[in-house]
Amino acid sequence: MMNVFEAIEKRHSYRGAFTDAPVPRGDLLKIVEAGIRAPSGFNLQSTEFVIVDDADLIARIGEITGNKTVSRSKALIACVSQEVRPPSAPEMSFEIEDCSAATENILLAITALGYASVWIDGCLRRENRAARVGELLGVPEDRTVRIVLPVGVPAEERAQKEKKAFEQRARYNKWS
Amino acid sequence: MMNVFEAIEKRHSYRGAFTDAPVPRGDLLKIVEAGIRAPSGFNLQSTEFVIVDDADLIARIGEITGNKTVSRSKALIACVSQEVRPPSAPEMSFEIEDCSAATENILLAITALGYASVWIDGCLRRENRAARVGELLGVPEDRTVRIVLPVGVPAEERAQKEKKAFEQRARYNKWS
Repeated sequence: MMNVFEAIEKRHSYRGAFTDAPVPRGDLLKIVEAGIRAPSGFNLQSTEFVIVDDADLIARIGEITGNKTVSRSKALIACVSQEVRPPSAPEMSFEIEDCSAATENILLAITALGYASVWIDGCLRRENRAARVGELLGVPEDRTVRIVLPVGVPAEERAQKEKKAFEQRARYNKWS
Repeated sequence: MMNVFEAIEKRHSYRGAFTDAPVPRGDLLKIVEAGIRAPSGFNLQSTEFVIVDDADLIARIGEITGNKTVSRSKALIACVSQEVRPPSAPEMSFEIEDCSAATENILLAITALGYASVWIDGCLRRENRAARVGELLGVPEDRTVRIVLPVGVPAEERAQKEKKAFEQRARYNKWS
């Protein structure tokens, strides 16, 4: 089994082709369980998931998003967020934080199981696409399809994009 | 080394006491490197980190936040976000998403190395605390101390809070 640091290093935004290998529901379960176990503000668990492995639905989501990696994917996880406000802190919402933490867990699980994916987000913010995907999947109107994760066995070798050096992004004790 | 699924299961919001064991900078480097390797919108890497291992600074951040786990911690990671807009999509920002994904990687790395932490966030949104911590650490005014992560060796055994069942949070292909 892949250790956590290896998974963090190997995870990358994969935009290549996938092999014909399907993604069995047993693996999709493990992958989404990883998302379920992510932290959430006040443990309100505001993120839900639609796991799409119907080829016709995947094709239609590919059309809506205009995203080639979505069209090519063998399965797809739609991460659905909801604005849930903690009773003791009703001025706050952790909708985006919760959904993003769950997504990162899912991406690491995908990597550990030998699949590849890419965090598709900005694309959904244009041309009403999030709502159109939500409508296709029957997501209630009080929820948002915030992130879509295509899944498949990568047919090409890719790597994580280069990151800035530690010294450029981290400091000890004081900013400068 | 802990595998990724084990780290995801063991990660929990730890609010207990810490032992006297310090957190060596070698481990803090590995932990923050995990955050640096998280995905970010357009790879803009909008999250930066202040690693605090100065006991006086930790005590002062404990006072500002009024958080006992912060006061007790042996080290502390301040996750600092910035609104960075992609040139090709200037209407978008991934500030919260990026910071949350980095935070989740950091929490998994903390868990894998035998430490414990808790995602402190809502607390910083009250009483101008985020800005006060930022000022103490010299964080530029165009950045936000969004999340603070106390780190130490847990003195007590705790576990992840219960999560809703898979069936309550996930569906295949259609919402209902």
